[in-house]
Amino acid sequence: MKDKKVADSKTIMTEMIMPNDTNPIGDLMGGNLLRWMDIIAAITAGKHCESHVVTASVDHVSFTQAIHLGDVITIQSCVTRAFTTSVEVFVEVFAANIKGGENRPCNHAYFTFVGIDEVKRTPIKVPQVVPLTREEGNLFENAVKRRELRLILSGRLKPADATEIKSLFTDVQ
Amino acid sequence: MKDKKVADSKTIMTEMIMPNDTNPIGDLMGGNLLRWMDIIAAITAGKHCESHVVTASVDHVSFTQAIHLGDVITIQSCVTRAFTTSVEVFVEVFAANIKGGENRPCNHAYFTFVGIDEVKRTPIKVPQVVPLTREEGNLFENAVKRRELRLILSGRLKPADATEIKSLFTDVQ
Amino acid sequence: MKDKKVADSKTIMTEMIMPNDTNPIGDLMGGNLLRWMDIIAAITAGKHCESHVVTASVDHVSFTQAIHLGDVITIQSCVTRAFTTSVEVFVEVFAANIKGGENRPCNHAYFTFVGIDEVKRTPIKVPQVVPLTREEGNLFENAVKRRELRLILSGRLKPADATEIKSLFTDVQ
Amino acid sequence: MKDKKVADSKTIMTEMIMPNDTNPIGDLMGGNLLRWMDIIAAITAGKHCESHVVTASVDHVSFTQAIHLGDVITIQSCVTRAFTTSVEVFVEVFAANIKGGENRPCNHAYFTFVGIDEVKRTPIKVPQVVPLTREEGNLFENAVKRRELRLILSGRLKPADATEIKSLFTDVQ
Amino acid sequence: MKDKKVADSKTIMTEMIMPNDTNPIGDLMGGNLLRWMDIIAAITAGKHCESHVVTASVDHVSFTQAIHLGDVITIQSCVTRAFTTSVEVFVEVFAANIKGGENRPCNHAYFTFVGIDEVKRTPIKVPQVVPLTREEGNLFENAVKRRELRLILSGRLKPADATEIKSLFTDVQ
Amino acid sequence: MKDKKVADSKTIMTEMIMPNDTNPIGDLMGGNLLRWMDIIAAITAGKHCESHVVTASVDHVSFTQAIHLGDVITIQSCVTRAFTTSVEVFVEVFAANIKGGENRPCNHAYFTFVGIDEVKRTPIKVPQVVPLTREEGNLFENAVKRRELRLILSGRLKPADATEIKSLFTDVQ
Repeated sequence: MKDKKVADSKTIMTEMIMPNDTNPIGDLMGGNLLRWMDIIAAITAGKHCESHVVTASVDHVSFTQAIHLGDVITIQSCVTRAFTTSVEVFVEVFAANIKGGENRPCNHAYFTFVGIDEVKRTPIKVPQVVPLTREEGNLFENAVKRRELRLILSGRLKPADATEIKSLFTDVQ
Repeated sequence: MKDKKVADSKTIMTEMIMPNDTNPIGDLMGGNLLRWMDIIAAITAGKHCESHVVTASVDHVSFTQAIHLGDVITIQSCVTRAFTTSVEVFVEVFAANIKGGENRPCNHAYFTFVGIDEVKRTPIKVPQVVPLTREEGNLFENAVKRRELRLILSGRLKPADATEIKSLFTDVQ
Repeated sequence: MKDKKVADSKTIMTEMIMPNDTNPIGDLMGGNLLRWMDIIAAITAGKHCESHVVTASVDHVSFTQAIHLGDVITIQSCVTRAFTTSVEVFVEVFAANIKGGENRPCNHAYFTFVGIDEVKRTPIKVPQVVPLTREEGNLFENAVKRRELRLILSGRLKPADATEIKSLFTDVQ
Repeated sequence: MKDKKVADSKTIMTEMIMPNDTNPIGDLMGGNLLRWMDIIAAITAGKHCESHVVTASVDHVSFTQAIHLGDVITIQSCVTRAFTTSVEVFVEVFAANIKGGENRPCNHAYFTFVGIDEVKRTPIKVPQVVPLTREEGNLFENAVKRRELRLILSGRLKPADATEIKSLFTDVQ
Repeated sequence: MKDKKVADSKTIMTEMIMPNDTNPIGDLMGGNLLRWMDIIAAITAGKHCESHVVTASVDHVSFTQAIHLGDVITIQSCVTRAFTTSVEVFVEVFAANIKGGENRPCNHAYFTFVGIDEVKRTPIKVPQVVPLTREEGNLFENAVKRRELRLILSGRLKPADATEIKSLFTDVQ
Repeated sequence: MKDKKVADSKTIMTEMIMPNDTNPIGDLMGGNLLRWMDIIAAITAGKHCESHVVTASVDHVSFTQAIHLGDVITIQSCVTRAFTTSVEVFVEVFAANIKGGENRPCNHAYFTFVGIDEVKRTPIKVPQVVPLTREEGNLFENAVKRRELRLILSGRLKPADATEIKSLFTDVQ
């Protein structure tokens, strides 16, 4: 199993907001955006792992911009770091009016996927990520902090043992 | 605007996992579950706010159990606490085989919604929550900590100023 | 095979009326409501029978209230009575504006489902229903009349042999 | 407003059973068939009434034949009789394997639709039906009996006053 | 394998334009119409071939008429001619306002389908077409020209060898 | 109105083949692919025209490769040339197994869109295209031939007047 570059799994998705994607006041429902983000993240993870994958978690997502009926959204995603059997995927969403204009950043999220053996349905080892650019390096480095927070929030790590993120709070004392 | 009880907006949703909800290995895709969780949370927030609402954020969600084609999921939700123009909604997911058997807990999440004036499209004040049971009280109390974490993760609060959750990390020193 | 209580299979479904659920004048199409009623009835029957089930029939359904885009509907269902291989399910629909307000009763229907062995694809015996409350008792008692009418309407019983419902017409002479 | 022939609104619909139309054992769900039947009936009623229409009721429907993934269904419908502001529509369903073979009759139903003024949203007068063939004549004649049963079942007519269908039960004494 | 008449596979499909079928200005999106045309053409080809079929190509399609939300479209299709393992299907689309009025012709297309053995997944021989009416005869005759153009456009025939359609251009010199 | 580069409207779409996208033998139905191609082409045309657009036509499309359930397709599109009120869009489809592997070219098509004033619903002038690369230049040059064929096939140009493509056939005499 060879290490892989971030670029190997970079994925771009474009969707037009259709009537049924909107709430009664004509804006994209948050849950529909989450669904598309999960699909692109699954595709990205699948390309990296060269296997079937299942969603393990999604981190905090904020929705700060209304996206309207007929808007065009562009979703970009890439792997940031692999752990033993899982991979973190960074997903960013941009929106533009159908008549063009700038693509405004809307939100982003980190998804975690587990590589799965489709016959045994058990986790499999996944290839490691080789960050090349500075931005890829930053995403790679900070993945450890995000993972610690994830483990705390899912009850699998005590805050006291979260050596990476504890410093965020204690350094400022 | 009268304060409201948690029970006033309690909502239950039941869905059967249909073929198009599943991934190529026949399990419910995480994003489809997130979409349903967002819909029930929006309904719950709408009942409490007596207004249109928009998703402001969803906190960390873990997916620990595979849910299969034909399974029946039950999603329950209630408001936990209101802030000035927003409300936190707690959503829990359970799944059972169509042939019955116990309803196994699958995952849960906290969504935040903002009440919206549908004409001006600006945030409006929302009713406060009156917790009555012990469980409602716990959800109410801890909402402050979750809100701090949400503000940190969306870049609107510095960790050093997060008085509620800092203690989680510093108490153990 | 143990007898079962009505409460064992009671099910609640909540749906928000989305754009694609509506007709060109913005109201829920009757057929979409029938589809949801069939799904919840199938889930209810599956819980009671602990088996796969297929729809055998739906009795007369009236639509007396318009349900609008963005309304929230609540559908409740329970088994009323089991026959040898089939079960009758009572389904009730309520609707409310997204801004809250009373849940107004919209309509109701009786569905019949047959328990199915998923390998042989043949009908199987299903557990009997034990009515406990007065309302459950009434639904249980009247199920025989509804069944007679169903058999007449599907051509499997002559009106003259419908001892239960004939009295409705003849008593008044 | 001119009277209309049955042929003026005759409608044929063909659908292929897609994966998401089926239940977990691969057969068409009854509710999906009811949804298609309602759509074709609405189209038929709209052609006859030359107006928007809403579903008022659907009579008893039996499902006696399993329809499988990939099967092709043909649905035919026509108006049978008009009352003041409503029209009865007869809908028949046939199914065939995609590899051809005979079109087997599956089930049928009678829907009632009300013509609606799209601005005032109130019922409007609809054109009368002129039956021409013997079969159209039979459907036209028996529509009165079906309407009586509908009124009894929706609580708007007492069995004792149902002069048309009472004879079904009393004649045989 | 017996030759077949055109009438043996004639198919009619009726659809109402629902909100999610439309673009942001409320008209049917071309791609949704193409999807329905492909489905009815597949059904038609399946009836003729008595086998599973896959789309091989669709010829040029023009969209000259806007079709609006709530319009009712009627799609008719028939086979025109069979080649060794493929069949050409002619598809015509008509639209009408829901309030009735004439069915206006909207567009048409020629699809080609290949008969497929579902186990080996290889092309199979398909029955020949027997044209009976003058219109069926014309469609049958001209199928050869359309096939030549198709072969040129997909790079499998040189224009110089397209004996049938070359005359269109050279006769007029 | 400024001329625009091809790169200004280049668009990439990624989709995973879900169960309901497939035919009964588990492969992507051609019509679903056409629907996605139309959506991305509409987005591309909208970016270029900075207006609402409607599909005017799609040229011949061949389907030479089966695409399976769970495959990931990548669709790329760009404008090739603008005429007075219309724009030609080139769309290419690639598919890969979810476990990675090379992205195999599947098919391509040329769509034509007309820029529309959303209030008057009439065609509007659209910006011209400035081809920069050799490939963009070729697409730009050949657009005239494709347009002639389109006009012939839609009956708006006689073959004898098709000066650009006549030579394809007559040069070889």
